[in-house]
Amino acid sequence: MLELQLEGLESTRVGSESGLELDSELRAWEPSLRAHHQALLERAKDPAAMLGWIGVPEDTEALRAVRRYAEGAAWARDVVVLGIGGSALPARGLYEALAPTAKTLHFLDHTDPLPVWRLLGQLAPETTLVVAVSKSGSTAETAALLLVFRRWLEDALGEDWRRHLAVVTDPEKGPLRAYAGNEGLAAFAIPPDVGGRFSALTPVGTLPLALAGADVEKLLMGARRANRRALETAAKSALVLYLLDRYRKKPVHVFMPYGRRLFGVAQWFAQLHAESLGKARNLEGSRVHAGPTPLAALGPTDQHSLLQLLREGPFDKAVVFLRMREPGEDLTLPAITGLEAFEYLFGKTLFTLQEAEAEGTRRALLEAGRPSFTLWIDRADAESLGELYQFLMWQTAFLGALYGVNAFDQPGVELAKVYAYALLGRKGYEEMGKRLKEEA
Amino acid sequence: MLELQLEGLESTRVGSESGLELDSELRAWEPSLRAHHQALLERAKDPAAMLGWIGVPEDTEALRAVRRYAEGAAWARDVVVLGIGGSALPARGLYEALAPTAKTLHFLDHTDPLPVWRLLGQLAPETTLVVAVSKSGSTAETAALLLVFRRWLEDALGEDWRRHLAVVTDPEKGPLRAYAGNEGLAAFAIPPDVGGRFSALTPVGTLPLALAGADVEKLLMGARRANRRALETAAKSALVLYLLDRYRKKPVHVFMPYGRRLFGVAQWFAQLHAESLGKARNLEGSRVHAGPTPLAALGPTDQHSLLQLLREGPFDKAVVFLRMREPGEDLTLPAITGLEAFEYLFGKTLFTLQEAEAEGTRRALLEAGRPSFTLWIDRADAESLGELYQFLMWQTAFLGALYGVNAFDQPGVELAKVYAYALLGRKGYEEMGKRLKEEA
Repeated sequence: MLELQLEGLESTRVGSESGLELDSELRAWEPSLRAHHQALLERAKDPAAMLGWIGVPEDTEALRAVRRYAEGAAWARDVVVLGIGGSALPARGLYEALAPTAKTLHFLDHTDPLPVWRLLGQLAPETTLVVAVSKSGSTAETAALLLVFRRWLEDALGEDWRRHLAVVTDPEKGPLRAYAGNEGLAAFAIPPDVGGRFSALTPVGTLPLALAGADVEKLLMGARRANRRALETAAKSALVLYLLDRYRKKPVHVFMPYGRRLFGVAQWFAQLHAESLGKARNLEGSRVHAGPTPLAALGPTDQHSLLQLLREGPFDKAVVFLRMREPGEDLTLPAITGLEAFEYLFGKTLFTLQEAEAEGTRRALLEAGRPSFTLWIDRADAESLGELYQFLMWQTAFLGALYGVNAFDQPGVELAKVYAYALLGRKGYEEMGKRLKEEA
Repeated sequence: MLELQLEGLESTRVGSESGLELDSELRAWEPSLRAHHQALLERAKDPAAMLGWIGVPEDTEALRAVRRYAEGAAWARDVVVLGIGGSALPARGLYEALAPTAKTLHFLDHTDPLPVWRLLGQLAPETTLVVAVSKSGSTAETAALLLVFRRWLEDALGEDWRRHLAVVTDPEKGPLRAYAGNEGLAAFAIPPDVGGRFSALTPVGTLPLALAGADVEKLLMGARRANRRALETAAKSALVLYLLDRYRKKPVHVFMPYGRRLFGVAQWFAQLHAESLGKARNLEGSRVHAGPTPLAALGPTDQHSLLQLLREGPFDKAVVFLRMREPGEDLTLPAITGLEAFEYLFGKTLFTLQEAEAEGTRRALLEAGRPSFTLWIDRADAESLGELYQFLMWQTAFLGALYGVNAFDQPGVELAKVYAYALLGRKGYEEMGKRLKEEA
């Protein structure tokens, strides 16, 4: 069960600024958090509120379709997921954390020809399943890769290419949905009231994970627990982050899991917070230019990279550690003659070392007046990860409410797309494209 | 040849704050930059100044030894690099960018037992070479992995394990150097006056890269060019970053290459800046708590993650784009019947799309008053990467001089280590360990 370790925040005073007296803050803010919770639950019925992610863990029908399809795809050894942003980050985070082995997943969430070339050279089309993921069905990067893989499949397999391509997209709208209908492809729905970065537990995440052999039932079970405990855990952690930013001038939020397998979660966390909270206007329409800066880090690796800055640099950062109570498989460090300089490690395990590093870093930061708190999960299994994922979505929703911004849109990414279309000469953008090229 | 594209900085005014009038700033700061350059070159002769990285690209003798060893290791198919922080990031950045294929490199820069287990299960000891990299020779994480791999090699190969292990460490001091001497292992030196994060072009980087088949001569050739052009390129870019932080309140520096293969460079950049500039005290010993926050990003991937925050969030960020003039291999996007919604992509290439996204994002940020500049490299080959790497080290050195901090130490990471030692019961730390455990 996910737990918060919050002690020590009161001791991180800097100059005239006091530490965070969490008990009294929690008492003061509790009515407001309750009201936000109630409002989120009530507005969830309104599709325009984009709160569909709250109900996703209850959707056992979508899950059954995913599992049925995965069972029928025993012929596949490699799954190539074409998707970017919310169509890749949450699923990759789960894949790295759970590390299921039934099939190998490859996430292509970029446009660099070299790694795409390399991957194409390694794959056997006969045993490769391609899954194209895009909420709108019109994402340029995903479309470009789809064109390449669609041709590659047909060149190798002829008419049989259709069995090797599935799509995850809007249930009715967009070019991907239309194409799947026309060609009779397997197609899975992202509910219209679930945004990309909140779609982790829809088929965006469950389809790749079920194909790889993860226990997707347990994933949703954990997420339902996070729904029940949202006020107790997610609201509290959101409040801490909000207070540290607004009232203790810590606008940089470092998310630092211990364990390489959890780094993908940190990368998704960065997207969740950046796109949800980085907003020009608040809910009343006034200019605010708000939003903490999320920084994905990894322990103990980044003790050898970012820690110097975290401990001695500006007092503008708060750290959220993510730790596991147990590692599953572990490795014992043997005694080796001639390496007695490392006797303190002999007989210990790799996980013991990792935990000592985590604890040492937590204390060293607190002593330097740098606030942090810890999210504890039992282990990196499907149930714990499902709870963690839904917790992070709730945390983001509470943060949106506290900052007073719409956490469920992303208006600031449009202009870059429009310019890219213009430079590519897409119909309707020719004039702008001409102007941009003249300026360059 | 590396080039800076700096136009547009003058137009990013926000409220009463003016844009950066770069020409006049450059004129004003030129004498100071020249003086810093001169001082760095002069102090490079003093080993205590830790400026040995300036002379590394001239060290053809170290390179010959590396190449001779690599030629003799034709029997190896996989190379496992055990190292963390500066012993992994620069080499991995080069490996991802150049993507040589003579051998497969695996960088283990973490302590998560699961991925280590998995890797051990995939490797054949007979064709695996293990390279342990640690400047001090006493890094705990690297030592732990060395114990595991050392035992694994001997269990499989008996006395022949020695041929499968090489070390890169201080030329005289530390447990790794002693062990290599006692056991007769291949050993390569990191010059004492080169710090970990500045050791990219010593055997820390050249040994793994030579083994993988990259052209390490060209790497150093490019780096020598960066030495010649340091004042012209690195000093100028350092000044822009410094002015944006200090005089335009942009303490967050986003480093955003376009091209997945360049993301490892961004991760090393984050270490270079965080450890070099995140300092509690300046050179006079006064408390400053300085240091910009480096944020490694990736284009176009992070247009779907961070861009919302970069464009609409607080005006506290500057973006450094890194772009290639040509991609090497490219992929043409075929026309597919039924996917005419993507007709604007038909016949284009993946790289054309990537470049349109880069240019679109650059313009969209400038229009929103967000400053950025671009580093251009010709292509991701050894010569360009060598120049880029040495450029980034010079940039960091100039930034240290401008901020007035010692860019070549990292005092803030010690306490976390000491606490970890105490928790592990290392000799001499027992008392502290007992206290820490009682407090917990």
